Amino acid sequence: MSVPQALEAASPLQICRLMRPDDANIVGNVHGGMILKMIEEAGCIIGTRHCNTQNGDRCMAALVRVEKTEFLFPMFIGEVAHVTAEITYTSKHSLEVQVKVIAENLLTGAKKLANKAALWYVPCSLQNVEKIMDVPPIKYATEEEEEQGRKRYEAQKLERMETKARIEEVVLLLPNPEQHTVGYSQSSLIHLVAPSDCTLHNYVHGGVTMKLMDEVAGIVAFRHCNTNIVTASVEAINFHRKINKGCVVTVTGRLTFVSNKSMEIEVLVDASSLMEAKKQKYRAVSAFFTFISLDKDNKPLPVPALKIEGEEEQRRFEEGKARYLQNKAKRLANKERQQ
Amino acid sequence: MSVPQALEAASPLQICRLMRPDDANIVGNVHGGMILKMIEEAGCIIGTRHCNTQNGDRCMAALVRVEKTEFLFPMFIGEVAHVTAEITYTSKHSLEVQVKVIAENLLTGAKKLANKAALWYVPCSLQNVEKIMDVPPIKYATEEEEEQGRKRYEAQKLERMETKARIEEVVLLLPNPEQHTVGYSQSSLIHLVAPSDCTLHNYVHGGVTMKLMDEVAGIVAFRHCNTNIVTASVEAINFHRKINKGCVVTVTGRLTFVSNKSMEIEVLVDASSLMEAKKQKYRAVSAFFTFISLDKDNKPLPVPALKIEGEEEQRRFEEGKARYLQNKAKRLANKERQQ
Amino acid sequence: MSVPQALEAASPLQICRLMRPDDANIVGNVHGGMILKMIEEAGCIIGTRHCNTQNGDRCMAALVRVEKTEFLFPMFIGEVAHVTAEITYTSKHSLEVQVKVIAENLLTGAKKLANKAALWYVPCSLQNVEKIMDVPPIKYATEEEEEQGRKRYEAQKLERMETKARIEEVVLLLPNPEQHTVGYSQSSLIHLVAPSDCTLHNYVHGGVTMKLMDEVAGIVAFRHCNTNIVTASVEAINFHRKINKGCVVTVTGRLTFVSNKSMEIEVLVDASSLMEAKKQKYRAVSAFFTFISLDKDNKPLPVPALKIEGEEEQRRFEEGKARYLQNKAKRLANKERQQ
Repeated sequence: MSVPQALEAASPLQICRLMRPDDANIVGNVHGGMILKMIEEAGCIIGTRHCNTQNGDRCMAALVRVEKTEFLFPMFIGEVAHVTAEITYTSKHSLEVQVKVIAENLLTGAKKLANKAALWYVPCSLQNVEKIMDVPPIKYATEEEEEQGRKRYEAQKLERMETKARIEEVVLLLPNPEQHTVGYSQSSLIHLVAPSDCTLHNYVHGGVTMKLMDEVAGIVAFRHCNTNIVTASVEAINFHRKINKGCVVTVTGRLTFVSNKSMEIEVLVDASSLMEAKKQKYRAVSAFFTFISLDKDNKPLPVPALKIEGEEEQRRFEEGKARYLQNKAKRLANKERQQ
Repeated sequence: MSVPQALEAASPLQICRLMRPDDANIVGNVHGGMILKMIEEAGCIIGTRHCNTQNGDRCMAALVRVEKTEFLFPMFIGEVAHVTAEITYTSKHSLEVQVKVIAENLLTGAKKLANKAALWYVPCSLQNVEKIMDVPPIKYATEEEEEQGRKRYEAQKLERMETKARIEEVVLLLPNPEQHTVGYSQSSLIHLVAPSDCTLHNYVHGGVTMKLMDEVAGIVAFRHCNTNIVTASVEAINFHRKINKGCVVTVTGRLTFVSNKSMEIEVLVDASSLMEAKKQKYRAVSAFFTFISLDKDNKPLPVPALKIEGEEEQRRFEEGKARYLQNKAKRLANKERQQ
Repeated sequence: MSVPQALEAASPLQICRLMRPDDANIVGNVHGGMILKMIEEAGCIIGTRHCNTQNGDRCMAALVRVEKTEFLFPMFIGEVAHVTAEITYTSKHSLEVQVKVIAENLLTGAKKLANKAALWYVPCSLQNVEKIMDVPPIKYATEEEEEQGRKRYEAQKLERMETKARIEEVVLLLPNPEQHTVGYSQSSLIHLVAPSDCTLHNYVHGGVTMKLMDEVAGIVAFRHCNTNIVTASVEAINFHRKINKGCVVTVTGRLTFVSNKSMEIEVLVDASSLMEAKKQKYRAVSAFFTFISLDKDNKPLPVPALKIEGEEEQRRFEEGKARYLQNKAKRLANKERQQ
């Protein structure tokens, strides 16, 4: 039985995909990260397929290591990336996949080698993800080929052990603020503007900005209360300054006020052009989002109180409270009018 | 000419879309930001269409303000969002769009009002984005309707002016490090793990993590040299710890070493579970990315030197230099072997 | 020179991709529209590559027609779709691509034929999109093969001319219709064309349009029967008019015919430029999708009867029934021939 398995495993896998505007930067160079993602997808497919050719639990190949890789030629929008993956070594519990990426210009027919990579996978059981499965052995064309593979295997094993030791001693350099303070839940997000975020005149759609703002506000709210949260309302937002295609957007959220059952988060959007010589950051938008927390039946849950530190936070808290009370009064007035 | 225009503008626009896993959080609640994005898309379409019914430059409706909005009911994956947008007021240079979002449960047929919003748009010429075009007037059913609209218009105008004054006085609180230092270009990105990032056992695909890492490294490299940059190589990456569905991932990049024509960026990936009571952050992956800068003919450009501050940065610089020299020696050795 | 060109053109192209949560509905069935999109991407790549093997303007292959296609087995999240495309006929100005989709279950190794399709492309110059380029001829294995291809070419040419005339009226929405009527399940979706939807000459990929069409058809089918539904087949689609970057696309679906176990949905795609003064909406594409409903074991479920109202609906119902009976007769004839 093992011979045909080995043969099938050894047949390479091919993925190809047309490069689109969202895969590239503003001058049309495909992001290296997009290429790494395709490489890993190919490795995951061929590795998972191979490890499921034997009896036992069904499993998925999990990536444990990528060897040093070089981007030999830039790729461009409109080119086709051909990714070829092949299993080149198997140990008892891991396998090596070698991947090549060829960029093809459909218009000229020119092909160039854009990347070569080697990835190591380990098969994890779907029943119990901590259980590492056995890897069916592959057949090698020559003994030397197997020997070379074994050397690569030993070398990477050594390095993984070394870096594992190093990673565990990592001291998190970030200051560790106390839970339920403003600093504890404050969060930022950086977004590189993509073509599909933009209007026909290359400015970011307001809706795209609002989506990013809500995302950050949601992370802040979640960090504060650690339960399921949803957006309850958004105060008026003014879009004073446009954000264009060549920008990096930084979205920061921080709690300003917390009532029994709601959290108010101020979200600040700063943009800076990637292209202009003096990269003045500017405030493009800011807004207040209110989030509530819901239990399994979608009923509101109580929210932990906010620990205020310093005058600045106190001032923002008072302002938030004023908005909260004003909104509450408005809601009551509306209700009465309707009755 | 103005009568039929006005009539057509008054006909509402409808968008509908099925809510998908990536539109929602892990318990299935659709992100408020997704709903805001749909609302704005509808507003942009109806506004742009209306403003192009007159002669003159072609234009796009740019969002300048969203009125306070409330999320009345949570929406869920599998529901259909129906977004209806209508132009409800026009001034000389701006227009108001009112939008309603109805959530329809396809299984029960139940419909509920999920959101109501009012947005203000201004038509900007495609030729010259600073040029604000005239808005064709709409017809109102009654005089009172027009009067109500005018009041809303005046009120929001006042508020926009106020916040404009406020936003301009904003002092950037962030410390402003000197250009070409490590601190100047250091960048972070936060990513909430989405269903489509994950394997069948709900762990993040290694390829997705690498894409995020490359994205942050690219932002760092760009901030340092301010020219077009591309990934040149990636040192070996070890994936010691898995990242699962309920996680927030923080990806941080900082320059470690700069040669004449290349930049080495260390990228650190920290994950923390959103769901576990004590949300211990842990280092999931780290790696070194090398970027180069390219001119218009894709030839490498020189890179500004890195200003080192402190012992820690000096140590990392020396280590980076050692890796750089080692790689250079390897490349030379390979070349000689091939000749 | 023409001989090696012909040989290379004849070598098939393979695309493969892992199916993810966003590619599927809530019970895990991959959307037919996702499969159609992959099929078209493969066709576009192989067609564009082939047409650029001769001298002259650089060009892109534009989809003009998809032959009737059947979804033979449902696909699921976690499976790998293998798409193989091959050029099977060339006329002076068009080429036929035949595509096969194999679904591979990575865990069990099982493979099944999920779809077979035939697409017709026309090469449009990148300099001037109205200029149709010549198609380099391919070599056929036998004379009979060429003769069969010519017959398919003539047949589709005739049909394209016929349907070109049949551009239909725009649909009206009825207020609050009764369940199981046509009006009850009728649905529309509006999409603002994004850069990544487009080819190098800024026209929407046919695959993107088909994905939107399948999405609307799925909502209509779901509303009618309120159970899990999947695409069973699509009648031939003709792409009469291109849709470009500055367009808004309105996709409308309505039931035309319902048998015991299937629903036929007519899908109409109207495009209108946001920018042009007289915003003439035009019918870009239309097609008939057939959906079936599946229970938990993926067995077909009965479908509620359709309540017909008025002559127009009756006429469309009769036409749908005729198509249904014709397809049934064809399937039976094929079966008998195979026995």
